Formats: sequence, structure tokens, C-alpha cells
Amino acid sequence: MSALHEHLGAVPLIDHHVHGCWLQPRDRTTFENALNEANTEPLADFDSGFDTQLGFAVRAHCATALGLARHAEADDYWDRRTAVPEAQLAHHFLAAAGVSDWLVDTGTPGVASLGELSGLAVGGVYEVVRLESIAEEAAARPGDYAAAFDEILADRARTAVGTKSVLAYRGGFVGELSDPAPGEVAEAAARWRDAGGVRLTDRVLLRFGLHRAVRLGKPLQLHVGFGDRDADLQAANPLHLLDFLRGSGPTPVMLLHCYPYEREAGYLAQAFNNVYLDGGLAINYLGARSPAFIERLLEMAPFRKILYSSDGYGPAELHYLGARLWRSGMTLALQRFIDSGEWSVTDARRVVDLIAHENARRVYELS
Amino acid sequence: MSALHEHLGAVPLIDHHVHGCWLQPRDRTTFENALNEANTEPLADFDSGFDTQLGFAVRAHCATALGLARHAEADDYWDRRTAVPEAQLAHHFLAAAGVSDWLVDTGTPGVASLGELSGLAVGGVYEVVRLESIAEEAAARPGDYAAAFDEILADRARTAVGTKSVLAYRGGFVGELSDPAPGEVAEAAARWRDAGGVRLTDRVLLRFGLHRAVRLGKPLQLHVGFGDRDADLQAANPLHLLDFLRGSGPTPVMLLHCYPYEREAGYLAQAFNNVYLDGGLAINYLGARSPAFIERLLEMAPFRKILYSSDGYGPAELHYLGARLWRSGMTLALQRFIDSGEWSVTDARRVVDLIAHENARRVYELS
Amino acid sequence: MSALHEHLGAVPLIDHHVHGCWLQPRDRTTFENALNEANTEPLADFDSGFDTQLGFAVRAHCATALGLARHAEADDYWDRRTAVPEAQLAHHFLAAAGVSDWLVDTGTPGVASLGELSGLAVGGVYEVVRLESIAEEAAARPGDYAAAFDEILADRARTAVGTKSVLAYRGGFVGELSDPAPGEVAEAAARWRDAGGVRLTDRVLLRFGLHRAVRLGKPLQLHVGFGDRDADLQAANPLHLLDFLRGSGPTPVMLLHCYPYEREAGYLAQAFNNVYLDGGLAINYLGARSPAFIERLLEMAPFRKILYSSDGYGPAELHYLGARLWRSGMTLALQRFIDSGEWSVTDARRVVDLIAHENARRVYELS
Repeated sequence: MSALHEHLGAVPLIDHHVHGCWLQPRDRTTFENALNEANTEPLADFDSGFDTQLGFAVRAHCATALGLARHAEADDYWDRRTAVPEAQLAHHFLAAAGVSDWLVDTGTPGVASLGELSGLAVGGVYEVVRLESIAEEAAARPGDYAAAFDEILADRARTAVGTKSVLAYRGGFVGELSDPAPGEVAEAAARWRDAGGVRLTDRVLLRFGLHRAVRLGKPLQLHVGFGDRDADLQAANPLHLLDFLRGSGPTPVMLLHCYPYEREAGYLAQAFNNVYLDGGLAINYLGARSPAFIERLLEMAPFRKILYSSDGYGPAELHYLGARLWRSGMTLALQRFIDSGEWSVTDARRVVDLIAHENARRVYELS
Repeated sequence: MSALHEHLGAVPLIDHHVHGCWLQPRDRTTFENALNEANTEPLADFDSGFDTQLGFAVRAHCATALGLARHAEADDYWDRRTAVPEAQLAHHFLAAAGVSDWLVDTGTPGVASLGELSGLAVGGVYEVVRLESIAEEAAARPGDYAAAFDEILADRARTAVGTKSVLAYRGGFVGELSDPAPGEVAEAAARWRDAGGVRLTDRVLLRFGLHRAVRLGKPLQLHVGFGDRDADLQAANPLHLLDFLRGSGPTPVMLLHCYPYEREAGYLAQAFNNVYLDGGLAINYLGARSPAFIERLLEMAPFRKILYSSDGYGPAELHYLGARLWRSGMTLALQRFIDSGEWSVTDARRVVDLIAHENARRVYELS
Repeated sequence: MSALHEHLGAVPLIDHHVHGCWLQPRDRTTFENALNEANTEPLADFDSGFDTQLGFAVRAHCATALGLARHAEADDYWDRRTAVPEAQLAHHFLAAAGVSDWLVDTGTPGVASLGELSGLAVGGVYEVVRLESIAEEAAARPGDYAAAFDEILADRARTAVGTKSVLAYRGGFVGELSDPAPGEVAEAAARWRDAGGVRLTDRVLLRFGLHRAVRLGKPLQLHVGFGDRDADLQAANPLHLLDFLRGSGPTPVMLLHCYPYEREAGYLAQAFNNVYLDGGLAINYLGARSPAFIERLLEMAPFRKILYSSDGYGPAELHYLGARLWRSGMTLALQRFIDSGEWSVTDARRVVDLIAHENARRVYELS
């Protein structure tokens, strides 16, 4: 085992974008559907979530983590998994990820809360607050919408380390993204409240939220690229953010996932001092193909602008697998750079530390 | 030779999208032009169809199939090729492809018909019927256009196993793709008939044809991405199909070729239960670079949603080379997954069988 | 060392798109900023131009070229570099590039002129004349703008071997690119002169310049893809040039840089007899990842349509590194094709010669 391999196996990670894991068991259909990110309908009868790169990765790496043989059969994996209480499974996988700090996007339902994650005692837990959730809370309050939004944001930002927007799922990045005038915001809020204040898709209010996050100055996470089909993938190409980024000042903007626009995201990370990227979510779904993706993340983006995340959500396998695949993919990628004489081992170790935790610690100002 | 290599060398293929091959000899200029897909003009004087990845692949693999040394000179290859009667050459190459069933798009002229292909006795032959050809026949009949279209489609569908649209060459995927109202169809048909009924580019009638195919329920093949410059490559990005796919119900939609949008196509194959993809045409033209392309086909698409095709058209070399390059590219790709510990050999063999023939057999309901 | 390796180490190059190098020393901040192409602002305090793929490549290859150990520390590299007079550094790096002819885009300030480059005695020096510079000169002259433009262009074309447009930085490729009518040109020129005639962004005049270059018939270079954030990267996708290329006749159109649209550019080089591509600029910035990029340049483009360039500008390291990385990346790429049995060594050597100098010599009609 090379020195680099050893280092990558042990380096502590900051998972700067993740969700809660399940704490209650689900049935097999639900589990297999959770191995498909893009589909919003139940998998077809002829299909199986296990017959994918992610499914094969679960059978390779999560199987061994549960004491099964590598590449265990899907049925055997499922049997073993269901024999362990879900909370114990969660503790097992999250602990095995080697993550020192979890930065948790709390905008998704049905999974462990911040308190429950802390209770698992698998590392520090911090909140990343969803702007669209704040908007919904503000709509539910009486009085001035903007003032309510500001009050809630200020309150949450006392402990939250960053903000997150799912604009990609609410119309995408194409079109105007400037800060709307107060009058426009008030009008849009009134319209939305009249309509019941459910699921924010109003462009004016989405823009308002983004610019409040920019003003706050804490890192602003943006869902980019790969996700489910509710989003138009083309409209989640980060190049559409060019004008927004030109006006975003020093607030760090974190481009998440990025597949298949990771080259475009890397370019933006080079072009703007405040732009960062990661490859969370995509690494899990690419499985055996994730090393090639990790190599593409190491193209145009300066090494001080790349972060680690799993984007794990639901099955605790995903929280572990993100780390497992990142460690092995980075090993393959960097070893290749070393073997071809382009990087030194010292360079490689230093870049590992930057991406694993140093960049995140600096940007999120973690202690 | 590894077990996987051996399996991939022998596995029978279903070529689910292919055209006829030449049965009459052509001159060298025509042959070299057939090694360039994108150009619609004669090759420049300074150029040669042999000085391309496809040309090198012909000299590597088709040369040995004709008893020449690997990497034979272009002149020697041409001499040997022309010494063999074209029909014998066709039989030789098609038999060497190891294809059990050919699903033939009959919408292209100047090549072997279904009957002639059957006569070569190189495997089962099935029709995939071109929607734009049906439209032209319907326009040529008297009376109601829609009724004529339906009657022809029903008649052809008695034996055809699927339909095909070249919408990518008739305006592309950008813009409205919903089912037009009957009145719109009648009006558009009248306009088109008045104009002579040649080469369908009317958007209303193209949309009508697509939705008749969706209603029929047999697999609908769509040209996607790489092709000749008559198409605007950008408008052949399958992501533009998002709304169409949302409304396409259970009818299988087969995304063909896909280069350079294979990642986007794979995403759609994950996002929709009825979406499939292949890498035909592109594999041939990429030659030595096709293994990297085949690896990208194995990213987001579930393994039960990927098919094999050559898209061979014209020189019978292409019908053989598609299979030859797919076999060697898959061997390289899957061996790499196995060597890195991500896949088992059993996994790999099973995925080979799915892509080689099982998925096609299931989707096209072949016996 | 393989025969191919040896050949690639020694083959003389024509650098068909390059700028002048520095002849006067700069401070370290300026140097590190020059290792970031996309950013138009000073690098952030927390960042370093050395912590990038390009920075690592400088420390690997330029360090040894200056007698330091491979992977020298950034501080040591800087110390050594500043100990050598800038003009001597320029001579050293340009000579080490192994370039026989430099085709110099003279449209950028602050670097060695054609005469100064000739004075370095490191190979032949030819001008590529910037169309937007001619436009600015024409605007500054009294009388008819079109006549002035034609006169200046004819004058410069007596010695210049080609033309260059930075349309990508002046609005991009999206939208109308046809030849404007004389009346339109006169009106647009009058408006521009009234506004002071600075930095040309008027679409009519940009189109006019392009079509004058097409009429001239000498190779027309176009900045494509990767560059700084003043350009909208999406609008620099060469697929937007489809209509322009359809009407560009036999005038060679050279697509420069291309990243991340190199697959699209390769397709266009196959689709049009007059379209060529290179990977200059991007190869330097990709460093250890440039071999993968070079492989993608070798996909759809016919081998007689690919050229070499460094796009070096400023630090003379870039003029050397472009050649160094191209030589090693080509060695890796072609050796892989040979090892997999797809190419012969003879094929590989011939393709090297085509890309290194033969294609450029033919297209630019160099002696």
C-alpha cells in the first residue's frame, strides 16, 4: 500500500453538504428507489436499483462494511441490512465514513434531524439552512414578508454555517437573477400568500432569497446539474449563473454535484475568487466510474477551491459510500499524476488535505 | 485470454438499429466519403477518409478479417476489398459480426432491402419503420391525411418491431413537441400536399407522427446527437426532449448514437422508466477512442436500459466493425471495473448479456 | 524509451497560435495571476497561482528546464526565475520548446513584438493579424470605413499568414453572423466613430470583419471556449457557428483552444472541409490532465485537420510548457492506441508529423 493510499484511507473529511439518514426501516422497494436519483416515479417492474453503478458499489463496499463478501448478491445484502436496526446501521455507516464534521442541509423531510444526527455521536453537526424553507416560514407569518425573511434568516444564521438554494428545481438558472426591488418583493409575496404560500416557485422571491444570502456573506450552496427530473438539467448548467456570479461579491458560492457540467463548474471556480465546487451525489451514482469524474474535478478549478461532500440522503449507505468512493477515486487519480511524473507525493498529500477538510474549514470558518 | 474476454468475443448480439449494406461495388471516393459521417460534401483533395479514427480501425480490424496484415496500407486494403464481389463481402462481414438479429431502419436508400438482408442468411431480420416515410406515403394518398397515416402505420406495424424518427434532421428537438389537434394536422397536411409533399419538415406533422408512434406503444427510436451537418448538433441534445418524455407514457424511447451527449442520455435513461440508449454510429467513428465512450455509456443509465447497435449503413465494414469495437471496448471497460475491485466477473458477464441481447429481446419482444 | 517517445521528443513544431512573451521582469503577484486565465481580478489572498494544475506543471517541467529539481517548491522556483534576466529566460524557454515557426497573434499588449521575437533567434516569426485591431485602425482614419478596413487588411496581409477574431469576447457566437450590407456597415461605423471608436463590440462591424477575412482566404483563427470571464463561455461554443461555417467557403477556419467544447469542435472539423482545431491554452492550464484532453482532440476530427499551438502569452514558461505537455500527452495517448492494437507505430509517427507541423505548413502555405 502506497503512502498516498494510506493517507487517503485515514484523512478526516468534512462533509460540507449532506442530509440526514434514515433512522426507521423502509421496505425494499423504497430502498431500491433510493438507489435511483433521477426518477421521480417508482422503478419499473423489469428494473432494479441494484443493477446500476451505485447498486454495484453498494454490493462491493457496503457489503464488506456489514461483514458480507465483496460483491454479495442483492438478496443477501438486503437480508443482512434488514437484520440490523436502522439506527445502528446509521451509526455504523456514518462512523465508518471517517467524517469529522457534517454540514447538514435540513430542507429535506423524513430523515434524521440535526439533534438525532448529533445523538449518533459520529462527528460535529452543523446546519446549512435552506433559503426556500425560510421563504415558506416567512410567508406563513403575518406582516412584511421581507422583514420576516430577514428576521428568520438572522435567527437561523446565528448557528447555521451556510445557506442553500434549490433554484435549480424552481425554474433553473436561465434568466434574470438580479436583486429585485422592495416593491416587487412585496407584490410577489402578496400574490404567493394569496395562493396559499406553498412550494415557492416565484422568481422574484427566489431572487430575493439568493441576494439576502449574498448579503449575509456565509457560504451559499447551489444545487447544480445532476438531480431528479423535476429539474431541467440544462437549466442547471452553472454557466447560466455568469451574471449572478459577477455580482455576488466576496460571498462564497458553492457549486454542488455539477455532473455533467463539472468542467464548466471548474472553469467558474478559476474565474471567480468566491466560487467553489464539489462532486457530491454524482460520485455515489457513478460508482466504478467515479474515479474518472474525480479526475475531471481536478482540471480548471484551483486546488484551494474544491471540497468534499457525499450529499448522502436517506440510506446511510450513501453517507459512507461517498467517502469510500472519494478516497479510492482520489487515490487512483493522484497516483496516476504521480506515476506520470507530473505531481510529487508531497503535492498529492497536500491537495488531499485541502479538499478533504482544509478548504471547508477555511470557507465555513469552522473551528 | 480472460474469461470476460472470451465471453465478450462470443456473445451473440442483437443489433437494434442498423441499415442495409451495399450489395454493389462503389468507387474509392465514395468509399472514403462513407468513412466521414458529418460532412455532406465530397472530401477535400488534401484529405482522406482513411486518415481518421474510423479509417485506422478499418485498417486494423477489417484488414485482418479479409486476411491482410493488421494495419494494412490504405491502398492494399482497397485493392483487397475490391477483389471480392460486394455481396460476398457483405456476407463475410455481417456473418463475422456475430449478430443474431438485425433491426433494420428501412428509411435510407441505395442499400440492401429487408429481403436482400434475409437472403444473406446472417441472422434474423426485422423492420424498424421510419415515421417520416409513412408521412410521405400518407401525403401521396388521397383523402384524410391522419387516417391514411394511421392505416399505413397499422399495416407496417403488423411486422415492424419499432418506429424511428429523424426529427433531429427536420428541425431538431427544441420547441413544442406536444400532440397537435386534428384540425392543425389537417391544415398542415393540406399545406404540405399543396407544396408537393416532399421531404417532411412541417413541425405539426412531425409531432403528429411522434405521438402516433407513442400511441402505438412499440419502441420509438430517435436519432440523437452525432450525425451529418444537415442537423444542428445542439438541437439534437436529448435534454430538449424533457417535456416530450414526461408525456410519453410507457412507450420505450430509444436514444440512438448520443455522442457527445451520452452523459445527458444516460441521465434520461435513469430518470424515465421508458428511456433507453445506445452508442451506435459513434463507436465506429471513434475507433481507438471508443472504449472511453463505452465507459461513459456505463455511467448514469441503469444496466437494463442500455442496448447495442452498429448503425451500419453502406460499406459492410461498418456492420462488422460496430460489433468488433463494442466487444473490445466493453472488454477493456469492464476489465478495468473488475481490476479495481468495483465489479465481480459475474457482474460483468451479466451486464454484457443485458446489453448484448437481453435488453433488446425484452423491449422489442423478440422471441 | 520507445521509438514513438523519441520521435515526439524531437519533432519540430509549428506553433500556429501564440502571443509574445515578457521581456521585462514582473512581480510575483503578476506572475501568479498569469497562471490563472479565467479570472479578471487579482487572485484572492488565500489563493496561489501555484496551487493549480498549471502551477504544478511549472514546478515539474519549467523547474527542471532551469536546473532545479523536479517539483521544486514555489518559492525556490520564483527565486531561480527572478535570478535570470527576463530576455534570457525568454530565449531559454522559447528555444527549449523545439518550435521551428511561431505564428504570432499581435493583438495583445505588453509583450515582445514581432521584431523582438525575431531577435530572440528561436525560429521563424509570422504575423496573424487581429481583425478587431484593423477595425480600430480603420475607425481612426478619415473617410469610408469599409475602404479603410480593406486597405489596412490588404496591407497587413502582404506579410501576415492569417487573421484572428476575438468575437467570443465581443458578444459571442450566438445570433446573426452573415455578411452585412454596405449601408449597414457605413451606419454602424459612423455610430462607432461618434462614440469614440474604442473597443469594438458593434455586431455589424464584427460580422463585416469576419467576412472580409473569409474573402481574403487566409486562415481565419477564432477564439473558442476557454478564456477569461469577460466572455460568456456558453456563447463561445463552436456549434453556434454552424450557419457561419456553412457559408464560409474554402477559407480555413481554425477553432482555437476549444475546451470544454473540444468534442463539438472535432465534429465540426469532420463536418466541414475548411474547419480545423487545436487545443492551445487548455493544454497548459490542464497540466497533468492534458493527456486526457489531447485524447479527446483525437476523436472526430480527421487527422489532417488538427494543429499544434501553445497560445503562450506573457511568461515564457507558457511557450515552452505548451510544447512540453503536448509532447508528453501525445506520447501517452498514442502509445495507448498502439498498445491496444488499434494503431501501428508507423500510423502514430505519421499523425504526430501531421499535427506537429505538416498540417500547419499546408494550411498557412509556409515554405
